[in-house]
Amino acid sequence: MAWKRISDAVIRRLPLYLRVLEEVKSKQSSISSQELGSKAGVTPALVRKDLAWFGEFGKQGVGYDVEFLQDELRKILHLDAPIHMALVGVGSLGRALTRYNRRRFRDDPIFTINLVALFDADPKVVGTTFDGVSIHHITDISRVVAKMDIQMAIVTVPADAAQEVGNLLAEAGVKAILNFAPVSIDLPSDVHVANADLSLELQRLAYYIHG
Amino acid sequence: MAWKRISDAVIRRLPLYLRVLEEVKSKQSSISSQELGSKAGVTPALVRKDLAWFGEFGKQGVGYDVEFLQDELRKILHLDAPIHMALVGVGSLGRALTRYNRRRFRDDPIFTINLVALFDADPKVVGTTFDGVSIHHITDISRVVAKMDIQMAIVTVPADAAQEVGNLLAEAGVKAILNFAPVSIDLPSDVHVANADLSLELQRLAYYIHG
Repeated sequence: MAWKRISDAVIRRLPLYLRVLEEVKSKQSSISSQELGSKAGVTPALVRKDLAWFGEFGKQGVGYDVEFLQDELRKILHLDAPIHMALVGVGSLGRALTRYNRRRFRDDPIFTINLVALFDADPKVVGTTFDGVSIHHITDISRVVAKMDIQMAIVTVPADAAQEVGNLLAEAGVKAILNFAPVSIDLPSDVHVANADLSLELQRLAYYIHG
Repeated sequence: MAWKRISDAVIRRLPLYLRVLEEVKSKQSSISSQELGSKAGVTPALVRKDLAWFGEFGKQGVGYDVEFLQDELRKILHLDAPIHMALVGVGSLGRALTRYNRRRFRDDPIFTINLVALFDADPKVVGTTFDGVSIHHITDISRVVAKMDIQMAIVTVPADAAQEVGNLLAEAGVKAILNFAPVSIDLPSDVHVANADLSLELQRLAYYIHG
């Protein structure tokens, strides 16, 4: 884990670079930090600084080799092999995200994150399937995560269930959680919880309404 | 607009501070940067640095006055008055986000962002309502935005429609857009577009799967 100390802000930009590389791949074999930056919405200097964390990818005057850089970024982000993901909380947001993710995984050849298990606490939905994915009871998280080799999870449960669900996922060994519940989840520091709370995002965005 | 140059990373943390203040409000009248930081997941030094951008809010040895700081942060984020928002693209994600936002606005007294108009291009849904909100045709964006004083928008349209919808919103005067479409939208620099693309978020999160 040589990358451990790299800041989240750097990691946050890598998928943007990956997307730009995918867009230009069919048209060109190399790309400058100027072009990569401009298409990703950051300065060329920041592109060079971000990528320098991981090695010497560019050549002076030539730029980056598109396919090579794409392969390297995929490895860094663990996107060079399929990743199994779970979603906990099959309400309306959970169902929409399930459909979205399934479609993305099916249609986009470079998108490797596959939603393979759903969890809920409601006996009316447990045992059924949604969009082809089985819904298990949350008390089965540990067993199903181990059996299906699940490494990531999306949490879309109500606020008062989020911490409990976070604990169950962490105990099961899940290290990366995207939390849509409108509360923070406290977990051991080796578990990365990203907040995707829409209300926080909107409140932040309100800052800009006067242009 | 004295705050113009303040970085997005600072703004991103303000709603987190607001949430912490709301949580402690009934129990205490002041809060230290230690406690505020610890509850928001940042260092006390960063709390002090973030808030110093906007004025002298704290008192040495006493900390911040909870209600005063809450009022100030609300003003900075324009959350001291209701904000009207639109959503464009009433598919499954759009519907889930509509329900989520409507419920949040109804149940949470401090959440002031109200979804008041929906837009879609499908003649089968235009003219109907969803969750009590009218669905208009996207060609009516300019008229409805002006009439209803809409200042923010969520975009949940397919990739190939995102730029056109972004243009229509920008022309109508919307300055803050939360974009869920899996492509970037290029707009004049006075329009703030936040990317909420779930696939980017998941790809970023995959970095952490090995803990």
